[in-house]
This record gives sequence, C-alpha cells and structure tokens, in this order.
Amino acid sequence: MPTITRVRAIDARFDLHDGAGSDAIHTDPQYGYGVTIIETDSGIEGSGIAYTLGGGTNLVCDAIELLSESLVGREIEELMANFGQIQREIAEEPRIRWLGPHKGVIHLALSSLSNACFDLWAKYRAIPLWKLLLELPSEKLADLVDFTYLEDVLPRELFVSILEDQRGSRTDREPVLTSGYPGYDTSVGWIQYSDSVVRDNVKRAIEAGFTAMKLKVGLKNSDEDIRRATLVRETAGDDATIMLDANQIWSLPKAIEVGTRLNAIAPYWMEEPTEPDDILAHQTLAKALDPTPIAVGEAVSNRILWKNFFQANAVGICQADCTRLAGVSEYLAVSVMAKKFNVRVVPHVGDMGQIHQHLVFFNHIALGHPKLFLEHIPHLREHFVVPANVSDGVYHAPQEPGCSTDLKMAQSP
Amino acid sequence: MPTITRVRAIDARFDLHDGAGSDAIHTDPQYGYGVTIIETDSGIEGSGIAYTLGGGTNLVCDAIELLSESLVGREIEELMANFGQIQREIAEEPRIRWLGPHKGVIHLALSSLSNACFDLWAKYRAIPLWKLLLELPSEKLADLVDFTYLEDVLPRELFVSILEDQRGSRTDREPVLTSGYPGYDTSVGWIQYSDSVVRDNVKRAIEAGFTAMKLKVGLKNSDEDIRRATLVRETAGDDATIMLDANQIWSLPKAIEVGTRLNAIAPYWMEEPTEPDDILAHQTLAKALDPTPIAVGEAVSNRILWKNFFQANAVGICQADCTRLAGVSEYLAVSVMAKKFNVRVVPHVGDMGQIHQHLVFFNHIALGHPKLFLEHIPHLREHFVVPANVSDGVYHAPQEPGCSTDLKMAQSP
Repeated sequence: MPTITRVRAIDARFDLHDGAGSDAIHTDPQYGYGVTIIETDSGIEGSGIAYTLGGGTNLVCDAIELLSESLVGREIEELMANFGQIQREIAEEPRIRWLGPHKGVIHLALSSLSNACFDLWAKYRAIPLWKLLLELPSEKLADLVDFTYLEDVLPRELFVSILEDQRGSRTDREPVLTSGYPGYDTSVGWIQYSDSVVRDNVKRAIEAGFTAMKLKVGLKNSDEDIRRATLVRETAGDDATIMLDANQIWSLPKAIEVGTRLNAIAPYWMEEPTEPDDILAHQTLAKALDPTPIAVGEAVSNRILWKNFFQANAVGICQADCTRLAGVSEYLAVSVMAKKFNVRVVPHVGDMGQIHQHLVFFNHIALGHPKLFLEHIPHLREHFVVPANVSDGVYHAPQEPGCSTDLKMAQSP
Repeated sequence: MPTITRVRAIDARFDLHDGAGSDAIHTDPQYGYGVTIIETDSGIEGSGIAYTLGGGTNLVCDAIELLSESLVGREIEELMANFGQIQREIAEEPRIRWLGPHKGVIHLALSSLSNACFDLWAKYRAIPLWKLLLELPSEKLADLVDFTYLEDVLPRELFVSILEDQRGSRTDREPVLTSGYPGYDTSVGWIQYSDSVVRDNVKRAIEAGFTAMKLKVGLKNSDEDIRRATLVRETAGDDATIMLDANQIWSLPKAIEVGTRLNAIAPYWMEEPTEPDDILAHQTLAKALDPTPIAVGEAVSNRILWKNFFQANAVGICQADCTRLAGVSEYLAVSVMAKKFNVRVVPHVGDMGQIHQHLVFFNHIALGHPKLFLEHIPHLREHFVVPANVSDGVYHAPQEPGCSTDLKMAQSP
C-alpha cells in the first residue's frame, strides 16, 4: 500500500488568447491551478487541482504546503477509509481555520489536496474515479464526507439512505457509460467575441453535436446583451438550449431588470446574476425571473452556504465545482443535498471537465440525477496528459486510472 | 501631502499563556496580525492590521503585497477622497478576486491594507481616527465606502441620509468623549480556566469597574457549560451582564438544545452558536433562543453576508470587526446598515480594541447607536505602542493621531 512521503505544490498559470475566457468581470483572463502532487514510496503520484484565474495562485500553493503536513507518513487506503474525519481535522485546524473558515485561499488549498488524495487512491486501485465511486458501498461513501454543520439537513444516515434508494435502479442508468454524457459548449459567446465570431461558433457547436451552449452577458449597455442573446437564439434555432451567464456583474435591481428582459430568448438558465454570497438576492431573483432558473456555484465556497441556497429555494441549477469546494468529498455532500432538495446539478468545470466527467457519471447512475449536460471548455486541452474525450457533443467515460487531472507541466522528467 | 513610496507586510504572531484565549474551537491559541506598513516620502508611516490566530499569517502578508501594488505613488488625501472606488478596484481585480471573492486570505489582506490607509490619513491630519471620522461631512464618509451589491438595501443616498438624520442630536451624545465608553471583560472565563480562576476573574472584573463579562461555552459535556455559567452568574450577581460564546462549535440541533438550557442564567447574548456562513441556522436560533439575542460577526467576511444576516433577522448583536471586514470603510457600511435594521453593534475586537475604540465613539455620536460596551482583551497590551487606555471599566477616548495600531515590533529601529 503506498505511503505518502512528500506533498508539494505547483503554481500553474496558462494565458488565454483572442478574448477566450473573457466575461463581464474578467477582462484579461488567465486560467490557473494550485496543483498538489502527492509523492509515495511506491512511485505512484497523486495529482490534484484547485482552479484559479491566475493571480495569487502562489498563495494557494503555499496554503497547500501548510495544510498537508499531517498527510505525510499515511497509507492511502487507511487515509481514504476515514477521509471525512481527516478532512475535518485539516479544515478545523485551530490556528489556521480563522483564515476562512471553509472559504477563500485555504479552502482552495484543501480542494487541491483532497482531489490529489482521490487521484492517488484511484490510481492505486488502477481504476478511473467514476468506477471507484460507483463500486463503493454507501457507508464507505459516507466515510469520505465531513458532515459537520449539515446535521439539520443531511445527517449521515440520510446521505446513506438517499444513495441506497437509488441502488436498485442503477442498471437502468448505466447505459450512459457507453452512450456518453452530453456536453454543452461554454465557448461560443465569450464577452469580447464579435457578432461574427459568435455566429460562427454557434454554427460550429451545432455541427460538433452540441445542443446546448452559453453566452456571456453583463455588458455596460444592456441593450447589447439583449441584441447578442437574440442573435444567438436566431442562429441556434428555437430547439437549442441557451444558457446566459452574467458572472456576478449585476446589482440585484439591475439583475431583475436585465434578467427579465433576457427571458424573451427563453434561456435555459440565468447564471451568476449577482454576488454569490447574496443568498437572499438569489431567492428574490428565483421568483422574479421565473420560469428561468437561477444557476450558481463556481464561487459558492462550501457545503454550509449550499445548504442555505437549497433551504432558501435560491438556486435552480447547482453548479457545484469540486475545484472550489473541498474536493470530490465535499462535492459528494452537496450533490446528495441537491438530490434531497430536488435541484438539478450541472457542475461548473474549473477543472475543464477532467474530474467532473467522472462525477456526472456517478451523479446520474448512483444518485439518479437527471442526465443533462456537462460544461465543455476546450482552452486547456493541450495541457492535460489525458484530456477529456469529447466527440459528437458527448463526454465519453474516461478509462485511465485516477481523476484525469495530470498536467503535462507537472510530470517528472 | 505624503506620497506612498512603498508598502510592506509583517507577519506578527504572539504566544498566549496559561489558557488565555482558549475556547471550544481554539485549544492552543496564538494571536497574530498581518501587518501593513505604508511608507511615504514625508516620513509618516501608516500601519494597519488584520487579525489572525497565528497559523498562515504569512499568507495574509503575501496577499497584502500582492494587492498593494496600485497604491504606490499615490498621495494620501487624494487616495482617501475616493477610497470607496479604490477599494472596489482592489477587491474586484479580475485575476485575483476568484480567491475570494470578498472573503478569506485576500479579504484579510484588504482589511490590513485599508486600515493602514486610514491610519496614515489620520496621522497626516494629526488627529485620532474618531475625530477624523466625526469631522467628515456625510458625503465624504460615503466616498470611503464601496456600495457595490448593497444597492437594494443601502444605496449611497440612504447611507448619507441616515448620517444626516443623526447630525442634529450629536451634541447630546458627545459627553461620551469625556465620560468614556464602557468596556466588557472577555477574559474572565476562557474555556481552559478552572472554576477558581473563573471565580477570581469575575470578582477582579467587578472590582475593576466592569459590569459585563463573557464566558466561553461549548464543552463536550454540556452539563459542564451549564454548571460554569451558573457559577459565573452566582459569583457576578443578578445585576451583572453575562455574555456566552460557543465559538461555532455546535450543530444547529445542539445549539438549540444547549442554548435553550443556558437561557436559565439570563445571558445578555449567545455568541457564535454555530458556523457563521449558516445564516438560516442563525435565523432559526434567533427564534429558538428568544429573548436571548444571537451575536455573530468575527467570522462574517463582508458587507454582503451582513446584508443577508440583517434581512433574515438572523442577528441581534452585530459584532462586525474591521480587522476581518475590508477595514474601517467596510465597517462603516455595516454599521450604517445595522442602524437601518435597528440592530445593536458591539464590535468583536481582533484589534484588541485599538481601532474599535475609535469606531464605537463614532458609532454612538454620529449614528446614534446605543452606548453599550466594547470588548476588552488585555493579552496584547504590551505589544502596542499606545495601548487602549481602559480604567474604571471604560475606554477613554484616544488622543494620539491615527488608528492606535502601531506595534512595537514593527517600529523602525
């Protein structure tokens, strides 16, 4: 059994070009990762990532090294048998938790660290993450989760019973492993793209098999938002699924005003209309923009905030991201909570879909979440050792062991 | 006018001894500061602090240096004339904001940086912070604040009119400047203190002129909490004001159970009963523990979360802390919002009361907040150049220019 000998962090930043990644808030984006590499005495390495937008990734890396000390010397199977408790001990470290708690730089570090543990575990078992999770008994899945502060809504027994309730019907949903999980194209309408680029991208997305695609909104002149959204609707056709994303740019009054106008193009969701800590504003918007659901998640830091979003009926599409949350394990807690509250889960892919492709197969088969679509962003494909296999508009189930997050730049020479 | 030539950060950590600072979560506490030193061409230096519990203070320091780049070359009066906008630009830096937004390490860095700007400003004007704030016209106070995401609840015009409404009655409240602002003694009942130490501390607090004091609760055996709280009540007498503080240790069901039992000693408030992101749990607790109000704030990161707390009637005592929030300016926004919602403000003093002594004089005189008491923690007195002057149970208005946060260890030799 591999024993952890060293944990190190790598600051990975990637420039984007020609307006890719641009939105209402992010004018000159980089994508970045606080990368965790877990070295073991067996030669197997675990790699984990937490997503950033470049700036300050070094802070996440320093926090990874600060939080990782207790992991050295542990065997991976022993670690994962009790990972919920171990994650809790790291998150609640008495002198460090003040820096969050459960949010910001130290939580991103815990995200990267946790994901690296899952990657190491799946590599040691020589199976992809989705297979590992599907093969685990429900009680073992519960052992991965820190239930602290969820006692009133998702006690451990309920987590287990929600999984058990779906076990009998799993075989009905397993065909998704061969048919693939649909993707949606995030990259047709970055905010700096011209009309002609957007139009070409929409056509290309449809030709590539996508039926769903996203447009960035939140321009200074809201009329321009309406015009561009209309252009996408007209180009894609009435049957296409179109998501809109304002990336937190609006105040609540502005979000109501522009969101209501944008309902004219019948969007599938309105994403990040305002600041993600503003749960009650999202509650108001969920009513004001009905029937369009509110999507939120890439900046929702932890399971406790998610609990509040669900309880307040403030979210219609849960975009939980395991590279923002404390990794795969906190993602599991949120996804099961979403199931309890009957909220759809469409992860945000800070990982470019590399880990979440595993998690949507699990979500659909093990939890009975509806088969929707997983965000697809191709901009970092060349940097992953095994990039997601997306063709004909679907993610094909990855076959390589681990979480698919090995980065070429992090490979030993 | 002083021009900023350099901004540097200092990692300050102080060991505590003999159980001081211990609570249900923090077993072996340090107190720490991410210190900002703003150097100018005139020789005046501004110093700012953000509070930590020691671990990872270096992350805050690195973040201070990351965020401070845009300040070099600016003149202090020009900077403060438009500080709300400048703070917004720093908080919304497109590549860095992902690390929060508005929370965790980067927000603590913004706290320290902002406080240093206020300190430099008051030193340049050669007056204490409270005097500076009281002398500013309401519109100039509004210029200090970033109102983004408060538009639905505290637009700029309302902020100004709330201040203007209180201006005519200021003279009624100005006597507090000579009588002093009452303190309460936080240090009678740290969780590791024995019964006899607690009893002695209660007596000593009363002899020192304090009428209000705090006990830490949240022991594994809740019967012990009840027993210790009863001991404090019996020692202090029925007229004493006793606050209880669980430091986030409880789940919601546990908080209801133990909090209800603790109502028997008629606490003045129940502080941090559970995780501070759990606004709806606080809303439930506010009803369940009535008439005891819920106090929360030391870990509430930003004005947006505060807005939700107020809107949800989830907080009875606002313990906003300008060394957790983005400094004095975000504190102003929260304090004015509290006034609008008729919520009492009793700051948590990560600064050991050094800055907040200024702010409670301002709160009472300029905003008409009731004169209550400010937390008093003496454990770092020896480390400040001019420690708060507390005697006969009251804070005496500081007279030295600035925010009173100069640390001896940060002085140039």
